[in-house]
Amino acid sequence: MNDICKISVCQIRTELDADETMRKAEAFVARAAKSGADFAVLPEMFNCPYSSRYFRHFAAQGHDRAVAAMSKWAKDNGIWLVGGSVPEVEGESLYNTCFVFDRQGRIAAKHRKIHLFDVDIPGMRFHESSTFSSGKDITVFDTEFGRMGAAICFDVRFPELFRAMAVRGARVIFLPAQFNMTTGPAHWADTLKIRAVDNELFFIGAAAARYEGFDYECWGHSAVYDPYGSCLASADETEQILYAEIDLSRVDEVRAQLPTFLRLRRDVYTVAE
Amino acid sequence: MNDICKISVCQIRTELDADETMRKAEAFVARAAKSGADFAVLPEMFNCPYSSRYFRHFAAQGHDRAVAAMSKWAKDNGIWLVGGSVPEVEGESLYNTCFVFDRQGRIAAKHRKIHLFDVDIPGMRFHESSTFSSGKDITVFDTEFGRMGAAICFDVRFPELFRAMAVRGARVIFLPAQFNMTTGPAHWADTLKIRAVDNELFFIGAAAARYEGFDYECWGHSAVYDPYGSCLASADETEQILYAEIDLSRVDEVRAQLPTFLRLRRDVYTVAE
Repeated sequence: MNDICKISVCQIRTELDADETMRKAEAFVARAAKSGADFAVLPEMFNCPYSSRYFRHFAAQGHDRAVAAMSKWAKDNGIWLVGGSVPEVEGESLYNTCFVFDRQGRIAAKHRKIHLFDVDIPGMRFHESSTFSSGKDITVFDTEFGRMGAAICFDVRFPELFRAMAVRGARVIFLPAQFNMTTGPAHWADTLKIRAVDNELFFIGAAAARYEGFDYECWGHSAVYDPYGSCLASADETEQILYAEIDLSRVDEVRAQLPTFLRLRRDVYTVAE
Repeated sequence: MNDICKISVCQIRTELDADETMRKAEAFVARAAKSGADFAVLPEMFNCPYSSRYFRHFAAQGHDRAVAAMSKWAKDNGIWLVGGSVPEVEGESLYNTCFVFDRQGRIAAKHRKIHLFDVDIPGMRFHESSTFSSGKDITVFDTEFGRMGAAICFDVRFPELFRAMAVRGARVIFLPAQFNMTTGPAHWADTLKIRAVDNELFFIGAAAARYEGFDYECWGHSAVYDPYGSCLASADETEQILYAEIDLSRVDEVRAQLPTFLRLRRDVYTVAE
């Protein structure tokens, strides 16, 4: 198994014109691959403006087009692609879904956001579950670098989900997301970091770039944390590709030096699996 | 039930002379009570230098003297006292134990550190389990402000423990601790904060003041976080009393505004209880 792996986070801004966004995403993924990245990660709802006004409209165009396009980008560039998320249609239901593609463009995993973003705090009101149904499966997948996991945005607030991925063998977790101008500065970076530390694995938060003046302004600040909680790379709020070379052997090293993940007290409490 | 509660953290430095430390602790608790604090919190191993060289020696003096003294401080001042921790002797075993006293000086709870500090990272090597046995009970107790919990230092690295306390009804958690100059700047504040945010409750980290030049230099930086993760008060590394007035109604408010604790997906993963 290979231990050294280059991650790229394509922090793009979602446009109101889906075709424009798709062209941009394609160009970012190609650029990341040309720079030697093994993985490209897109943001949550990268092809659909993050607003209840747009979800159904964009979903009506069918997620199959976005899936076919992403599959082609992965295959053409020979890169792993964690496809942020798109509105997925199944019968009458919509899901906020992350498709993961291998280097041959095959779907390696599919994560439906489990915890929907329903909040009503001063400065931020959103009710994602008015539009979306929630997933119920924990998502891990195998690569030539070992097992990895994927979850989406608000999922990050639930430590059990990440514990379960770690127990299932994930050593890298991808989190496409769109935190906002209220919860972003309050919680984003620290939550990513502590998920990495608690489970002693690599944690990649892939945010969208900020669209100033749009209904929902994304906090941005994509970041990559190592198993000790060190920040290997972080972005501001602008469009960019964030790169981080990660050494997977660091997972075992940190787990041996600071034995927490290996010393869970299952005799005292239940551990999510 | 009363919602408004004044917390004080007595961030004292442990001296090599136990009597000197005890006199200082007594004075700090009295001062906190005079300032109207409902709770005084002492640091981990407040009466014994945090070093394997001293644990057995100080334990040999018996923890009963320290317990009797703390009981008297609580009763004399009519204050709740979370007594940091002391080396507790039971037969051949030693425990790193936090005794909690009510306003009448009665033992309201007793927490034996569950996760012992065994680390070997660059800059910090320690093997607490060479000296101590580990506890196996999750600790919550009832007050006129509702239910609260206690854990000790390295315990904080295990999210399941705090989830279980929260599920059992704790709305305030006390963590006497002694992070060090390596793990302190790396993890201390962010871990406290995210435990508060994940469980949407008040989290109080009570560190010792730094003893420069001693075997083990404590990071200090006691801090109080609210259920949204806002830092209500924080210290540097020096001796001081840190005060924070907390409003317990904020727990329900945050849990309603940002429903995470109330939306755990027990159908997807197991939640510690």
